[in-house]
Amino acid sequence: MTSENGPLVYLALGGAGEIGMNCYLYGLGVARDRRWIMVDCGIGFGDMETAPGVELVLPDLDFLEGERDRLEAIVLTHAHEDHVGAIPHLWDRLGNPPIFARPFTAEVVRRKFDENGLGEAPLRICAPHDRVRVGGGFSVEFLPITHSIPEASSLAIRTPVGTVVHTGDFKLDPEPLLGPPADLAPFRALGQEGVLALACDSTNVFLPGRSGSEMELVANLERVIAAAPRAVAATTFASNVSRLRTLAQAAVNTGRSVVVAGRAMRRMIEVAVETGVLTDFPTVTPEDRIDDIPADNLFYLVTGSQGEGRAALARIAAGQHPTVKLREGDTVLFSSKTIPGNESGIYRLYNRFSEQGVRVIDADQERIHVSGHARQEDLRVIYELVKPKVAVPMHGEHRHLVEHARLAREWGAGMSVVAPNGTLVRLDGNDPGIEEHVETGRVYLDGSVRVGALDGVIRERLKLAREGAVFVALVVDEVGELLADPQVKCLGAPEDDEAWKAPLDEMIATAVDDAIEGASPKQKRTEAAIEELATRAARRVTSKFWGKRAVVTVLVTRLEEE
Amino acid sequence: MTSENGPLVYLALGGAGEIGMNCYLYGLGVARDRRWIMVDCGIGFGDMETAPGVELVLPDLDFLEGERDRLEAIVLTHAHEDHVGAIPHLWDRLGNPPIFARPFTAEVVRRKFDENGLGEAPLRICAPHDRVRVGGGFSVEFLPITHSIPEASSLAIRTPVGTVVHTGDFKLDPEPLLGPPADLAPFRALGQEGVLALACDSTNVFLPGRSGSEMELVANLERVIAAAPRAVAATTFASNVSRLRTLAQAAVNTGRSVVVAGRAMRRMIEVAVETGVLTDFPTVTPEDRIDDIPADNLFYLVTGSQGEGRAALARIAAGQHPTVKLREGDTVLFSSKTIPGNESGIYRLYNRFSEQGVRVIDADQERIHVSGHARQEDLRVIYELVKPKVAVPMHGEHRHLVEHARLAREWGAGMSVVAPNGTLVRLDGNDPGIEEHVETGRVYLDGSVRVGALDGVIRERLKLAREGAVFVALVVDEVGELLADPQVKCLGAPEDDEAWKAPLDEMIATAVDDAIEGASPKQKRTEAAIEELATRAARRVTSKFWGKRAVVTVLVTRLEEE
Repeated sequence: MTSENGPLVYLALGGAGEIGMNCYLYGLGVARDRRWIMVDCGIGFGDMETAPGVELVLPDLDFLEGERDRLEAIVLTHAHEDHVGAIPHLWDRLGNPPIFARPFTAEVVRRKFDENGLGEAPLRICAPHDRVRVGGGFSVEFLPITHSIPEASSLAIRTPVGTVVHTGDFKLDPEPLLGPPADLAPFRALGQEGVLALACDSTNVFLPGRSGSEMELVANLERVIAAAPRAVAATTFASNVSRLRTLAQAAVNTGRSVVVAGRAMRRMIEVAVETGVLTDFPTVTPEDRIDDIPADNLFYLVTGSQGEGRAALARIAAGQHPTVKLREGDTVLFSSKTIPGNESGIYRLYNRFSEQGVRVIDADQERIHVSGHARQEDLRVIYELVKPKVAVPMHGEHRHLVEHARLAREWGAGMSVVAPNGTLVRLDGNDPGIEEHVETGRVYLDGSVRVGALDGVIRERLKLAREGAVFVALVVDEVGELLADPQVKCLGAPEDDEAWKAPLDEMIATAVDDAIEGASPKQKRTEAAIEELATRAARRVTSKFWGKRAVVTVLVTRLEEE
Repeated sequence: MTSENGPLVYLALGGAGEIGMNCYLYGLGVARDRRWIMVDCGIGFGDMETAPGVELVLPDLDFLEGERDRLEAIVLTHAHEDHVGAIPHLWDRLGNPPIFARPFTAEVVRRKFDENGLGEAPLRICAPHDRVRVGGGFSVEFLPITHSIPEASSLAIRTPVGTVVHTGDFKLDPEPLLGPPADLAPFRALGQEGVLALACDSTNVFLPGRSGSEMELVANLERVIAAAPRAVAATTFASNVSRLRTLAQAAVNTGRSVVVAGRAMRRMIEVAVETGVLTDFPTVTPEDRIDDIPADNLFYLVTGSQGEGRAALARIAAGQHPTVKLREGDTVLFSSKTIPGNESGIYRLYNRFSEQGVRVIDADQERIHVSGHARQEDLRVIYELVKPKVAVPMHGEHRHLVEHARLAREWGAGMSVVAPNGTLVRLDGNDPGIEEHVETGRVYLDGSVRVGALDGVIRERLKLAREGAVFVALVVDEVGELLADPQVKCLGAPEDDEAWKAPLDEMIATAVDDAIEGASPKQKRTEAAIEELATRAARRVTSKFWGKRAVVTVLVTRLEEE
């Protein structure tokens, strides 16, 4: 039982120092014999600015390589992609640990295993308030809490050396409309038992006050939908089943037929029905019936609230959705948050609709969205109940962690630790605090391949995006004499300009030819030397005439005499 | 005088249907003999998502090609880059018209001519309230108004067929601290004379209430700066000279030395002093004196409030600024707006500072910024004074124009027209409204070359960013037989993967070799046919192993027998 007597450590591999890609480890025992549990294993998303062409961003699990025999369990707080989405992509590196989750979350994960051909998921379905031994000296209790997805849970993680409360994503909603209201009694009881550490959601830590209840939206949504003169399309996150139900119910109450467009939404509703979370979703009208229904009786629930290019809403805006068409006088409701970084794409959609005479109403204009994350006064409530010795802010960029750490002290935490990804924090003992820093990072899912964020692949693509590419093919003989004219192809470069004497590729070809012809035999002895001569010549041309140092690639083929 | 009897038309070449790149034309006379004046000629900015590597975005002036002999004047409302920045880049296409502006704006433009080697600018310096004949039947009166730069002006554009009020960027500030308060009397007088059309700023049309006064910031800034324990760096737009003075004065009042870091800011202060706009800027401490001053007596004014990579603030955050270093306990004030689309870059800066223990305070946390643009109640005031027959919303994305057009009717405009770039609107006569649509667009300044937004150059670079590039060089003989192994180089692609049998370039080389060797002589008769065979083979490999269709370029060199 040595390992079970501590130390107890916390280590974020993702989600602390960024929003998204949540992945946290708790370890028990001395370093060489430490038993681990992982809480959540989520993805982030690439964007044009930092990771163009990248589908998903995954936490780097290199640290686990040497530890995975001692990874006892994965425990999932809820089914959002930034908490569970990385599992199918990293499953081969996790050593097949059991996955503990409540039924809705488990069903989402089971389907991911199916879709990715990973066989049967080793799921352990947990009921609220059971104390489940998950191995390695840890037991876990799922504490139902409110958020923007069914069956979200905080975790009470008990160990022989003390208890951690890990909030997961949460808010305190007295009327969530789906599932029970936030129940604070278990948090109070834990506070009375004594809690070592509180690992707590920081998403809304900069916002004062409380985050509000789903219930507040019902009347507004019904009023806004009733006032719309023609068809209405509403978008929100596919997994916000409570919101989907509220929207659909408001539509039915105002005499509209509900059509669900977007696979992710249909799937989430299905999972919620299958797992008994959802028992009373209004009747959905099949997409092929749309043409039979007058526009002012139509209501669409659609995916794509973040402006995602391939989601239903963007395709509707582009006039490319197979079944849903919006026309002048129709209305689009964004019953959703604009995730920072997505503004441009979302506003682009707004303008597309505006150009078509479709009115857009968002949460800035009408109260048709509430956040799923606790704001300052909600957080204070949790701190005052749980009374942790150590506060460990998580789920946030660095600035969120720092602000949360500061406020946690005000709210009564004994101490607070800013612990971004890779910071190993000791939670128990006389001297809790940062113990060491381990290497962490990001892995990109690029096409079907995992690429390290530091491998240079993406850096090279960003350079291509800014500078374009010049390809030069040369054929030389044994002594480096050109056997044919240089061949040049420029990509992402202007072909011609009124101020130039010839097109860019011709100017480059001439310059390369001159450089090779003018070089001494010694200067062109090796392919590498010829490449270098040609690269420099090509770059001089792009710098001079285009004002850019293009990415120049030269391929030299040397033909031997027969 | 036929041309001077109308019709009078409005045509935006930029700025209507987008924020930035403002460029508006007013024309008088029948189409074949129409005399034009241009109001403003500004730039927009490229971003990674839509125009990677592009320095500036310019309005497309193709429409002016056949008209430039009849372009009588350029009139400038104020010196912001999105109103004057395109002049040096498009000057060669404008036919050398005189430029009318007030002294501060004129001096900014004069310096642009100098820096770009364009010779002497044909500037006509105007005093407020003079009615200046600018040619073609137009006279222009500059109406001083408040904004976030010195000497901003609305224009009263008088013609024989009626008067247009063109607001430019504006707000109604009773205490702007620099320059006179907003004076509404001329607008009232114009309303009484009768106004055909109001072309009006839409930037803040979604925001209720009034935009507030510079005066409201003074006490807050002083309090926040006084409370900072160590050095403070404050950022705002370089051209917001009033704010620079307020910031500097607050620093001096709290016992700090003011250092200005950032060329653009020093230049704007210089221009303001030279033109007599600014008479009492606090003494500035040279950068080389920084080391002599204790941190808690230091105050830096720095450029880069939008997170621009090469501006002072980003370089300070990266520890790469030559003179300004910030350390744990220092404070950064963002006395500025976050322009939509810039959120990611700005938050990246926040986090960089946060990681260094530098506290960031922005306008979400303290009231340390007010907008330079009129909000709904300010706009209403202008409409109620000017009483235009026709409202033509400008300075806004499509959604802004639509909302503004709707509100303009509520505020008493006789009619309102949504006229995005390229919409030619007749303003006078019995039947004002949209007359026709002309081709407009954007031109990118890419390196030193102007590239049309639709030329495909940028589209190709975006594709390279997402998909990477594969370059194949082949050498063949007369009958298409390979004379050497295919040479392959992949850019922005993973080199290897544990699941692959060989590195990507080798797999491609083998596949290309097989494809060419396996083809019949007929199939490889031309270079184009060989290129096609190789491209398909390479793409099959990237699709299968990488999951992407890379951009494949094949260069074929055919050697003839001697």
